[in-house]
Amino acid sequence: MIYITRRERFNAAHKLYNETWSVEKNDEVFGKCANANWHGHNFELIVTVKGEVNPETGFVMNLKDLSQIIQTEVTDKVDHKNLNLDVDFMKGKLASTENLIIEFWKILAPLIAGHGAQLHYIKLVETENNYVEYYGN
Amino acid sequence: MIYITRRERFNAAHKLYNETWSVEKNDEVFGKCANANWHGHNFELIVTVKGEVNPETGFVMNLKDLSQIIQTEVTDKVDHKNLNLDVDFMKGKLASTENLIIEFWKILAPLIAGHGAQLHYIKLVETENNYVEYYGN
Amino acid sequence: MIYITRRERFNAAHKLYNETWSVEKNDEVFGKCANANWHGHNFELIVTVKGEVNPETGFVMNLKDLSQIIQTEVTDKVDHKNLNLDVDFMKGKLASTENLIIEFWKILAPLIAGHGAQLHYIKLVETENNYVEYYGN
Amino acid sequence: MIYITRRERFNAAHKLYNETWSVEKNDEVFGKCANANWHGHNFELIVTVKGEVNPETGFVMNLKDLSQIIQTEVTDKVDHKNLNLDVDFMKGKLASTENLIIEFWKILAPLIAGHGAQLHYIKLVETENNYVEYYGN
Amino acid sequence: MIYITRRERFNAAHKLYNETWSVEKNDEVFGKCANANWHGHNFELIVTVKGEVNPETGFVMNLKDLSQIIQTEVTDKVDHKNLNLDVDFMKGKLASTENLIIEFWKILAPLIAGHGAQLHYIKLVETENNYVEYYGN
Amino acid sequence: MIYITRRERFNAAHKLYNETWSVEKNDEVFGKCANANWHGHNFELIVTVKGEVNPETGFVMNLKDLSQIIQTEVTDKVDHKNLNLDVDFMKGKLASTENLIIEFWKILAPLIAGHGAQLHYIKLVETENNYVEYYGN
Repeated sequence: MIYITRRERFNAAHKLYNETWSVEKNDEVFGKCANANWHGHNFELIVTVKGEVNPETGFVMNLKDLSQIIQTEVTDKVDHKNLNLDVDFMKGKLASTENLIIEFWKILAPLIAGHGAQLHYIKLVETENNYVEYYGN
Repeated sequence: MIYITRRERFNAAHKLYNETWSVEKNDEVFGKCANANWHGHNFELIVTVKGEVNPETGFVMNLKDLSQIIQTEVTDKVDHKNLNLDVDFMKGKLASTENLIIEFWKILAPLIAGHGAQLHYIKLVETENNYVEYYGN
Repeated sequence: MIYITRRERFNAAHKLYNETWSVEKNDEVFGKCANANWHGHNFELIVTVKGEVNPETGFVMNLKDLSQIIQTEVTDKVDHKNLNLDVDFMKGKLASTENLIIEFWKILAPLIAGHGAQLHYIKLVETENNYVEYYGN
Repeated sequence: MIYITRRERFNAAHKLYNETWSVEKNDEVFGKCANANWHGHNFELIVTVKGEVNPETGFVMNLKDLSQIIQTEVTDKVDHKNLNLDVDFMKGKLASTENLIIEFWKILAPLIAGHGAQLHYIKLVETENNYVEYYGN
Repeated sequence: MIYITRRERFNAAHKLYNETWSVEKNDEVFGKCANANWHGHNFELIVTVKGEVNPETGFVMNLKDLSQIIQTEVTDKVDHKNLNLDVDFMKGKLASTENLIIEFWKILAPLIAGHGAQLHYIKLVETENNYVEYYGN
Repeated sequence: MIYITRRERFNAAHKLYNETWSVEKNDEVFGKCANANWHGHNFELIVTVKGEVNPETGFVMNLKDLSQIIQTEVTDKVDHKNLNLDVDFMKGKLASTENLIIEFWKILAPLIAGHGAQLHYIKLVETENNYVEYYGN
């Protein structure tokens, strides 16, 4: 079993805001991340796939295919977007990196399975000091 | 003459949009950067100051003071903010990194002069592939 | 189960020296790391916590709280310090990154448990080429 | 159990090419990576070893020894080389990072076992966006 | 005058070899960089353009245009290529980064001038420890 | 005129302390950098040399020679050392990065001139947020 990884990037706006709370409670919990007019990040999305090496190609999976899937199905939908307003799969959810990574997993896992490999891990980097990781359960 | 540099960071939302143009022209010129609901970045702000070394301290200027000035006067005003909506000194200006760096210079140059050093250079990094630089003229 | 990570940094002096050995044996085993007058590093401390996502906040744990705990309980005690001389929890121990990371774990694990999450992993980076990792056992 | 890691680097040429296929099929599968006259990379090799901390040294294993083993047995054999033509242990194999990392494991695992530690993990970084990882099975 | 910068990347093979010298002299001067079967690198190409800010766009020059020019005219011609064998503008020249950066300048300077800006600086990074820079004279 | 650059690294302990001042004044000016028992850093030393390209080698100067000079004459004398206690050329000087870079210049400039090139610039990076630069006057 070998693990192969592709990094993609996207730039998006968001805010952390719970609509069922008062402005004050949002400020208390989320601090400046609750700014009404949004803020944003350069996100890095790291996707790791595992599988056996195909002896004909020397590949677990062609990284061009993996890159294409991530771009078409994930980063094109969030890049230069507002994560709270513009992204279908985030509607009704708090736009935290934790919630984002779970939705990314749901999109990517079946698509990668269709290429004979298995989604193993996703990492979503929000700043040079903060990131989240997910193994699908 | 020695040059000393401090890096600070801020996360902000913006869009590139010329209000005197049609939506179509904005899309044509600015592409996805014109997204109506904003996008955002992790900006890095690099500020270089020059001067003679003070023999008593071994410093051109205390980097703690430089850091404090940059934070209080610049990054606190743009961090977790919308550069088009929330920032006084960007009102009425296109929120490009070029325009941003010129405003940062206007703020920082006199404050650093007040500490016996001279602002030499500012660099503003928008993504790992794009940045702007300014020497004040 | 989602994993969230916070990076903090500290700058410290240390030496690798076994007091029960001769100077010659220390030099032989530790090389220039045994320099009597110390040397130092910019350490990076990466702390990963795991847990379920709280539906009200979208968070496993508020990263501001995690950052605060790491700073107050760990990095403030080692930053701009001598790891052999100035740090209570390293007294009587060889100041290796291995021993350091074990002590950091002992401090952080119960505090993070008190915030409804679980310490999963610590990474301590000593140079761009060397680091240690620990999962608590 | 503590995990310690050493990063080494090497610069090499290679091409991805299956000799049993036509030029057209190679181009279709491998794209520009099949360029007849080779291309190349700055590879980063990250090697993680696990074990108990030796109370006399505070070390799982001396990182100088680990570095020496990796250099002598692996990177000296691939640095400034052509991975398809110049490297004995890659003869007859597709010069993919997947195949490379498996061969590196076979070389390193017994040598590290001879130092009282255990090879845990290898990561081979080909570009800032692509890498492979291996745990030995 | 504002300076704007775009980073692009390419992966190429090359060797340092003076055809008018003996193999021994090449080995003596260029060491392992003279390896007959080539080696390679991940090159980073950093291109800085200067000019006045256009008040309608807030731009010195659209970075998408700059990126497009660099890709079409430079990196597409060297990416996944052999710098000694596959690149027209390097024919008959030693494939050093110094010679490469001079040729890149000749290509880019007139094209950028055609966009109302001025090529100011090129940086070509060969490894994390080595790079060259050029200002056009 | 082409500029070529080599990066080297060293790890050292130091403190910022003016012996003619009281402990209190040192604490006031230098803060935790005045810690009596030292602290330390991973320093990066970036050295840029300029000159014409030699048509026989394609080089301004062989980077192996430049690396060798920097290591032998500078980094070997400060690596794993205490900058206040162990380094001849820092005796009697405040161990600031400003003072350090001036001494490095004095050592390197004549040696590089002896290789037919000219020292252009030195950068000394103390942390990811702080660095100093010097052009020799």
